[in-house]
Amino acid sequence: MTHEQLTVSVAIASWKNAVERADKVFRALTEDQYQHEIAPGRNRIIYLLGHLTAIHDRMHTILGLGERLHPELDGMFISTPDKAIEPLPPVSELTKFWTHVNSSLLEKFAALSPQEWLQRHTAMSDDDYAKDPTRNRLSVLLSRTNHASYHLGQIILAPQ
Amino acid sequence: MTHEQLTVSVAIASWKNAVERADKVFRALTEDQYQHEIAPGRNRIIYLLGHLTAIHDRMHTILGLGERLHPELDGMFISTPDKAIEPLPPVSELTKFWTHVNSSLLEKFAALSPQEWLQRHTAMSDDDYAKDPTRNRLSVLLSRTNHASYHLGQIILAPQ
Repeated sequence: MTHEQLTVSVAIASWKNAVERADKVFRALTEDQYQHEIAPGRNRIIYLLGHLTAIHDRMHTILGLGERLHPELDGMFISTPDKAIEPLPPVSELTKFWTHVNSSLLEKFAALSPQEWLQRHTAMSDDDYAKDPTRNRLSVLLSRTNHASYHLGQIILAPQ
Repeated sequence: MTHEQLTVSVAIASWKNAVERADKVFRALTEDQYQHEIAPGRNRIIYLLGHLTAIHDRMHTILGLGERLHPELDGMFISTPDKAIEPLPPVSELTKFWTHVNSSLLEKFAALSPQEWLQRHTAMSDDDYAKDPTRNRLSVLLSRTNHASYHLGQIILAPQ
């Protein structure tokens, strides 16, 4: 393994770890627990499941990995806050989307070369990238990994 | 900038971003708000400030960056849960430690070469590292970045 491959492997392992931790927490919840708020008046867990799925699905586009699987989620889970739209899709359906999106991403991550990870992401112009080359695919991956960890810290607080 | 330097820069930028976000949230809190629990019966914010400081300080040791600054924090903020030891040090003191620890780390991170980031961390044997070379300094950095994001997600939930 070259140094570059090793570095990318570490970043992908970190992503995988965050997704697997969230997955484990989600799988342990009952249907009823998904309706609980993480703290009084805050997001419900079902909303965070949809939100993480939508944000991860969007990575297909921003990383230039092909068509995303569930663009219909954005309206419910990104551009509107929790409780603005009811009813949300059932947990069983969202769980299926969550699993598909994450496995699709992992498969596509594995196909990128270290050099491709260092190329700019699609939400950036060539000019912006020339100014700041650290805003590349890898930085998007690390940012989304931290986003998953951020919400995972909240999900485990929901009353049982 | 070589590819390897660029990769390490992205990881350090991600760490810096997580620490700065937490720092901004901490600085906006009143003395009184530090005593709030992030959710009913859970950790108080003052505990998480000490906990993050202690975990970050330990990175000096695990990454082989020299003596840590505040080993006395571990007993209060890592090996015991919140509310087991009272009183905790004042917020003003913990804030000073938090700032010193993070600036010391950033300074030492900047002095490591990309190759050094890929070397094993001190909590691993040579044998273990040979089996899994992704368990290196860089993986510790990403793991601690996610740890900070995880608790940041909780801190912002505390009632104002």
